Amino acid sequence: MTTANAAAIAHLEKQLNRHRLDSGDLDGLHEELTEIPLHDVVHVVERQPSKRGAVLIRLLSPERAAAAFDALDPAHQAEIVEALGREDVAGLFSALGAEDRVRMLDNMPAEIAERFLGDLDEDARADTNLILGYEKGSVGRAMSPNVAAVGPGEGVRDVVDKLRAQADDFETVYTIAVVDPERTLCGVVWLRDLFRAAPDARVGDVMRESPAVQVSDDAEDAARRLLSSGQLAFPVVDDGNRLMGIFTFDEAQDIVEHADSEDTARQGGSESLKQPYLATPVLKLVRSRIVWLLVLALSAILTVQVLGVFEGTLAQVTVLSLFIPLLTGTGGNTGNQAATTVTRALALHDVTKGDILKVMWRELRVGATLGTVLGVLGLAIAWAVFGQDIGIVIGSTLFCVCAMSATVGGLMPIVAKTVGADPAVFSNPFISTFCDATGLVIYFAIAKAVLGL
Amino acid sequence: MTTANAAAIAHLEKQLNRHRLDSGDLDGLHEELTEIPLHDVVHVVERQPSKRGAVLIRLLSPERAAAAFDALDPAHQAEIVEALGREDVAGLFSALGAEDRVRMLDNMPAEIAERFLGDLDEDARADTNLILGYEKGSVGRAMSPNVAAVGPGEGVRDVVDKLRAQADDFETVYTIAVVDPERTLCGVVWLRDLFRAAPDARVGDVMRESPAVQVSDDAEDAARRLLSSGQLAFPVVDDGNRLMGIFTFDEAQDIVEHADSEDTARQGGSESLKQPYLATPVLKLVRSRIVWLLVLALSAILTVQVLGVFEGTLAQVTVLSLFIPLLTGTGGNTGNQAATTVTRALALHDVTKGDILKVMWRELRVGATLGTVLGVLGLAIAWAVFGQDIGIVIGSTLFCVCAMSATVGGLMPIVAKTVGADPAVFSNPFISTFCDATGLVIYFAIAKAVLGL
Repeated sequence: MTTANAAAIAHLEKQLNRHRLDSGDLDGLHEELTEIPLHDVVHVVERQPSKRGAVLIRLLSPERAAAAFDALDPAHQAEIVEALGREDVAGLFSALGAEDRVRMLDNMPAEIAERFLGDLDEDARADTNLILGYEKGSVGRAMSPNVAAVGPGEGVRDVVDKLRAQADDFETVYTIAVVDPERTLCGVVWLRDLFRAAPDARVGDVMRESPAVQVSDDAEDAARRLLSSGQLAFPVVDDGNRLMGIFTFDEAQDIVEHADSEDTARQGGSESLKQPYLATPVLKLVRSRIVWLLVLALSAILTVQVLGVFEGTLAQVTVLSLFIPLLTGTGGNTGNQAATTVTRALALHDVTKGDILKVMWRELRVGATLGTVLGVLGLAIAWAVFGQDIGIVIGSTLFCVCAMSATVGGLMPIVAKTVGADPAVFSNPFISTFCDATGLVIYFAIAKAVLGL
Repeated sequence: MTTANAAAIAHLEKQLNRHRLDSGDLDGLHEELTEIPLHDVVHVVERQPSKRGAVLIRLLSPERAAAAFDALDPAHQAEIVEALGREDVAGLFSALGAEDRVRMLDNMPAEIAERFLGDLDEDARADTNLILGYEKGSVGRAMSPNVAAVGPGEGVRDVVDKLRAQADDFETVYTIAVVDPERTLCGVVWLRDLFRAAPDARVGDVMRESPAVQVSDDAEDAARRLLSSGQLAFPVVDDGNRLMGIFTFDEAQDIVEHADSEDTARQGGSESLKQPYLATPVLKLVRSRIVWLLVLALSAILTVQVLGVFEGTLAQVTVLSLFIPLLTGTGGNTGNQAATTVTRALALHDVTKGDILKVMWRELRVGATLGTVLGVLGLAIAWAVFGQDIGIVIGSTLFCVCAMSATVGGLMPIVAKTVGADPAVFSNPFISTFCDATGLVIYFAIAKAVLGL
């Protein structure tokens, strides 16, 4: 962001704070807003509580309001719509593409969503209902049904004229589907190819093969494939290979950004916010974290129980308790490193479920190597400070804990995926609980053997 | 991925395992490869050690080899090039765009990079050197200098003819920069607008305003702005607003994917791999993790020392040691939740450095609320099992630890960004060390006060 932008934004926010938004004194702000580039206005809306964001949107001209609204996250759109009330919303709501509208409706209470759906004109409602008919998380939910389609025998010049006249009806004119009379997909043409073709060429001459996605495919998978292909859009087909719509890179980009936010949040032990941090009420932040924190805290009671079993040993050799956070921490860290790497590799399709043995063998070797380094270091330091016996206990525990945690941490995301759970959700609490408890058992088993207790 | 694809890939991998790649027996494989879609071949290459990947690439026809090579990550390209040797590489290397070539060179030892640079023809070398002149991580490094530029007074028809003849010289023809005779940027035209314009229109009639980025801007910031704008490319200018190149969405997509992989890896306490998991040698995996593991383990020695101070108390009341992993774990989890949320918000520009007080006040409230819930629960459970005094100690420690950890966890990423460090790198070890040690001090302070030790 340039300094000029940052200054404009800071100034606008200061104005917002100075004006009492619920008072009538908004004229100055109204003028101010017309001079600020749209993406900066969007940025300011994203940093306000929804009610204030709604006031800002209402102050914009109808076209700018629609464009700004379109740029927000679906969950944030839903909150702003609820804050705006029925009359102001009609314009914003019809300006969205059918697939964006559905994503917003998904984030609303059902009865409000239905009221808004009722307010739409007939065409828009039909498009919206079509998309609502597909399963959540499928390509059908994220595609646009407004796909430009031509036949392979049509002349390039005719096609260009046709597209020119109807360009506004289509989600994109850069990728055009080529279909036979039964609407079976034959390939695609890119606008740049049409544009460079000899005027007497046919569509079939400049047609390209293109990967297609099915309406029932997982939208996140399809989005990652589209983005890594470098293409602008994939045609969408049903299971009979008939053209149903088009899946564009900007939709794919939104889906991947949300999926990555979700993975990041879950890896950190919370639910993803779905709307910008500063626009999220404190209680929503609490709600996004409390469940995980409770699950993790309750499962940590297992460590209290394991330690309870060894309370006698602890009372005999108090020095053993000094190393508890170090050992459980190292186990947790090693397990998390492995789980994070494998979860990301699964998301990027670098690793699949069938690779479970390969991953296990790799992580066992990685863990054993890490354990050797840490173990030797732990042996040396603990020996120097607490004597030979404690040194041997700490060194061998570190080795075992690292080897075990890396293996378990690498396996868990794949196991999660195999049983149909989200790798990031399933791995986190399982790994900390399992590695903590098992690590402590290993620790005391080694301590008892070495110290002869 | 469709089942047919998955089957083709599994079959190809089986073939790879059966053939001894270093023996001459590769004819069957050669034929097999011609029948498999290119993106599946790329997928297989990404799942092999680099040497095998290099053999696969060598088996492809020259055009397919260049396309497959282009689709790989820069670090993976660098390894494959090193495995291929000088002769095979020339074709692959010149087929890359200048900006992709630079990213690959950045991943090679300097002397090998220079040898390859020397092998390029003059034009390609000039383009490559131009980009190498910009700072790493800047837009200059990621842009293409081959930008289509036209004047506002030119006729749309002339422009279309010109572009049609020269399309292959440009990185993209979908976004065309509009410049005055001094090459100062005036705006952009989109190919779709040219294509829909009246034939006698001038470029100035269909020109749009567009955000531009500067060569010296941070490439990750620019990439996120481009992707969230929904546009296909931003023009790139110098600090005098003169056109220098074009920054396209597919380059932006690669940059953001790598940045997110890096954030995810660092949040999990390791360095990002930069190449697919299964193609990474085990020792590289160890190297990506060992530094963090050592930093975390060595800083955990602080917890050993803190506990050493309270060894007397522990010897008196052994039951206190049972709760150590529960308390340090909860503190770490709460801190990580806050840090993850704020780090992501910083990456998405939802939060900036100036918001530090806002974030602190939000996290303090979130932490206090979480602490109240966990504290009451901890009080009840510990009271029931270990009596009133221990219940009070555990309940109040949980409250204090949650409030403190959330606040510190939320602050750290912003502090890191302010001092110019990577929020994900800086936060992780700091938060676990700080929360563990401080949490233990709070625990024993409360225990001593309540139990009257």
